[in-house]
Amino acid sequence: MAGGLTVARLADVIERRTQARLAARIIGDGARTIEGAAPIESAQSNQLAFLANRRYRTAAAATHAGAIVLSPGDRQQIFSEPPAGVTLIECAAPYAWFAFAAQELAPAPLPRAGIDAAASVDAAARIDPAAHVGPHATIEADAQVGARAQIGAGSFVGRGAQIGADARIMPGVHVHAQCVVGARCIVHSGAVIGADGFGFAPFEGAWVKIPQTGRVVIGDDVEIGANTTIDRGAMGDTVIEDGCKLDNQVQVAHNCRIGAHTVIAGCVGIAGSASIGRGCQLGGAAMIAGHLSIADGCVIGGGTLVARSITTPGHYSGVFPLMPHRDWERNAALVRHLDELRDRIRALERQLDKKGSS
Amino acid sequence: MAGGLTVARLADVIERRTQARLAARIIGDGARTIEGAAPIESAQSNQLAFLANRRYRTAAAATHAGAIVLSPGDRQQIFSEPPAGVTLIECAAPYAWFAFAAQELAPAPLPRAGIDAAASVDAAARIDPAAHVGPHATIEADAQVGARAQIGAGSFVGRGAQIGADARIMPGVHVHAQCVVGARCIVHSGAVIGADGFGFAPFEGAWVKIPQTGRVVIGDDVEIGANTTIDRGAMGDTVIEDGCKLDNQVQVAHNCRIGAHTVIAGCVGIAGSASIGRGCQLGGAAMIAGHLSIADGCVIGGGTLVARSITTPGHYSGVFPLMPHRDWERNAALVRHLDELRDRIRALERQLDKKGSS
Amino acid sequence: MAGGLTVARLADVIERRTQARLAARIIGDGARTIEGAAPIESAQSNQLAFLANRRYRTAAAATHAGAIVLSPGDRQQIFSEPPAGVTLIECAAPYAWFAFAAQELAPAPLPRAGIDAAASVDAAARIDPAAHVGPHATIEADAQVGARAQIGAGSFVGRGAQIGADARIMPGVHVHAQCVVGARCIVHSGAVIGADGFGFAPFEGAWVKIPQTGRVVIGDDVEIGANTTIDRGAMGDTVIEDGCKLDNQVQVAHNCRIGAHTVIAGCVGIAGSASIGRGCQLGGAAMIAGHLSIADGCVIGGGTLVARSITTPGHYSGVFPLMPHRDWERNAALVRHLDELRDRIRALERQLDKKGSS
Repeated sequence: MAGGLTVARLADVIERRTQARLAARIIGDGARTIEGAAPIESAQSNQLAFLANRRYRTAAAATHAGAIVLSPGDRQQIFSEPPAGVTLIECAAPYAWFAFAAQELAPAPLPRAGIDAAASVDAAARIDPAAHVGPHATIEADAQVGARAQIGAGSFVGRGAQIGADARIMPGVHVHAQCVVGARCIVHSGAVIGADGFGFAPFEGAWVKIPQTGRVVIGDDVEIGANTTIDRGAMGDTVIEDGCKLDNQVQVAHNCRIGAHTVIAGCVGIAGSASIGRGCQLGGAAMIAGHLSIADGCVIGGGTLVARSITTPGHYSGVFPLMPHRDWERNAALVRHLDELRDRIRALERQLDKKGSS
Repeated sequence: MAGGLTVARLADVIERRTQARLAARIIGDGARTIEGAAPIESAQSNQLAFLANRRYRTAAAATHAGAIVLSPGDRQQIFSEPPAGVTLIECAAPYAWFAFAAQELAPAPLPRAGIDAAASVDAAARIDPAAHVGPHATIEADAQVGARAQIGAGSFVGRGAQIGADARIMPGVHVHAQCVVGARCIVHSGAVIGADGFGFAPFEGAWVKIPQTGRVVIGDDVEIGANTTIDRGAMGDTVIEDGCKLDNQVQVAHNCRIGAHTVIAGCVGIAGSASIGRGCQLGGAAMIAGHLSIADGCVIGGGTLVARSITTPGHYSGVFPLMPHRDWERNAALVRHLDELRDRIRALERQLDKKGSS
Repeated sequence: MAGGLTVARLADVIERRTQARLAARIIGDGARTIEGAAPIESAQSNQLAFLANRRYRTAAAATHAGAIVLSPGDRQQIFSEPPAGVTLIECAAPYAWFAFAAQELAPAPLPRAGIDAAASVDAAARIDPAAHVGPHATIEADAQVGARAQIGAGSFVGRGAQIGADARIMPGVHVHAQCVVGARCIVHSGAVIGADGFGFAPFEGAWVKIPQTGRVVIGDDVEIGANTTIDRGAMGDTVIEDGCKLDNQVQVAHNCRIGAHTVIAGCVGIAGSASIGRGCQLGGAAMIAGHLSIADGCVIGGGTLVARSITTPGHYSGVFPLMPHRDWERNAALVRHLDELRDRIRALERQLDKKGSS
């Protein structure tokens, strides 16, 4: 960060990075130096804030931030004239602009190239000279690690696995044999890529293991959260397409396919051979049953169990509502007897019908 | 695999492994060489497929597999005469036969015997000479590792813990002090066996830790999924009986007992001192409350919370159904007021009764 | 343990540890030596048991324990006169007394001071001479490890992170850069403290990462379960206050705040920026949505999803009840149509009203 960047410089860099698809209009002092990002309520004069939700308009009007990025509409509404001491950055996608700016202000450190003396790297592994392998990491034969990729302390890259360029494998990640992690992916500590899928055939009251010979294939720009598990395919592959973001403690079973740019919140479980569309959003702790498919662009509410395919994009939910425990006891008991309630309504309807016609 | 195995040889091996309890009748070319397993739709002439679900009968009729294993009934239905180029394998349990065959075609590699130079093994640990200990693994005093067992890179085996013969402890597994893992078990990366159970006594608004002095005792032929946690007992042991299969991200709390050959899908949580019967199947993300018992042979639906003991074998469920979000908002609100709906039905019944009798 | 402790000595030690807030009255032989703790049904003459639930009164009357701690009321009820061979310990908080005693009888071993030769410790890390760092652990520059703290085998302490005095970081824990773990904390294997929070801004159908520059700050006397994840804050910090106890596989997202002495059972998920009060109890697999707050002293039932703030202390639940699968199919289908049932009730009411007035 070293002294930060001026607002004008940030705007230039972002315009270039997005090939001019995200341009900003600066109102006020473009030469102001910004050193970091902060929430709108607590930002100081050397920090950048953003406004992306009208609930924070009052806070925006009173902010002490050095600069604030916001939409043209919000700008007009809040700042009829430019405020003293705050540089306004007007832009069509203020939250995205803020994200790009925050990246410029806090760039992930480039790895020290080279293999730590305490790592175990097989002679037949191919490690790019510009990659970094941390202490106590293990890299098996025929594995490949791309340019500028980082393999964190204590991580494991199995036989024949491939880690793409600029990928960041954090400490304590396991990528098993033959699995593929794309370029610029970030995989957080404790994630397990390519453990065996859960496949067994019943035989005489016991279970016979079906060898899991497929792979996990993860596209580019995917982020995998801490302690998330993605199982290798039974015969074909488990596939996570480009740009997906998976939060912590997500479970993806064998032979699933997750469409590009889908985001999956924490604690979600996806059973075997489920196919999730592109651009979906799965809320925290949603559970997806196996062998079904969900259309592109679906939003699944947190805690919802999806037990059948969804073919129409939309927002779906299914969660028992919260109540005081005593109310719950009474109402949950009635849920068990909804069929009786329905029958009593039917009986009443028939009685009244008869009376009506008599 | 080295060139594969003929169908006849596979049938022989499986008959021997099962002590003749799984015999097959070969129809067609028993000398055909099979090199791997594949799904029925994509299998090639050097691959084995299976048919175990009548939905795939059409696919079976058109398969390009070199061999297909199926039941006598399916064989008669689909192939009135032997098809050209496909060897038929008729057998009473085709899915199990397929699983055994797939194991023969893709055998788990025998470990390189010996202790990696980068492992830390206490002088007082007893490692069988035919076992393998990977790099960066730590094995504490008095731990035992059986014949041909594998301790993966970076794994931890605590003081006095026992790992059975032919067990495969994958990289990054933690087995804590005094815990026991049986013969032929497979424990996947990130699993934690024998962390402290969750036991605290309240005292003046804070919590006093109760030392967890029991063990985890895991029988033979158990598989434990990636990032699954099984806590040690508070005073007695937590017990997983022979042949159980636990998927990823399962949580088993202290002093639970899981009966033999029970299968537990991903993301299931089992609270303290619960006792699950033999041969049960717990669906993904099912949650079992503490201090209860579930009878042998129960099937619990995915996402179902079990809050009381189940004494009768059967299939149990309890999940809020999925709906479009707007429908859910309306219906979930009504769930909160089922008692009022019931009261209104009652009032109607009384009114009609009065009218009836008047 | 070395021969155990007498009942009288245990009482003295506990009275001193609690500064006389937990005194006991010994009835019978205070010189009896106790070597361990055990459940009331199986305890032997050298073991201590407790009675804290009236359901176990019969078991208490027949116990073979050497000593039993119980409330004055239970003592009077069960033992009109002191039983032979059992020392009674009467005390206002028997379960807490038992917990303290069990700690004295099974003290956590003090770590061997010093850094294992197979650990990787940066020259700029500050490790207290009385701390222990296990094999294959990695400690980065500027990290601090306090007096008598233990860093388990294969654990990771990132740049600038702080581990408090007497903390026990078990094998395979990851504490990322700048995060703070307080004194006497216990962090179990597989826990990940300070992975990136899940923050992305949408831009043209893809997601732009928002750097997560906050920390995780954990107070004193906190216990964190195996494979639990606590994400670092996006800009501010994620905070776990003193004395909290988190079970296994809990997920705490960025910028959450958990009030002091709150206990969180296994598999709970807490979404971003949620604020949980002090002294709350969250049941297993409860799910808390983001950007809400829960009042001090709330109890949330297992499996319950909290989607709105709770301002009144109390016990809240929301779980679909368990039923035989066939009943569930029928009743769950009706839940989808509660609005229709309500409309039919309304129609009946109107009809009857009309009839009544006609």
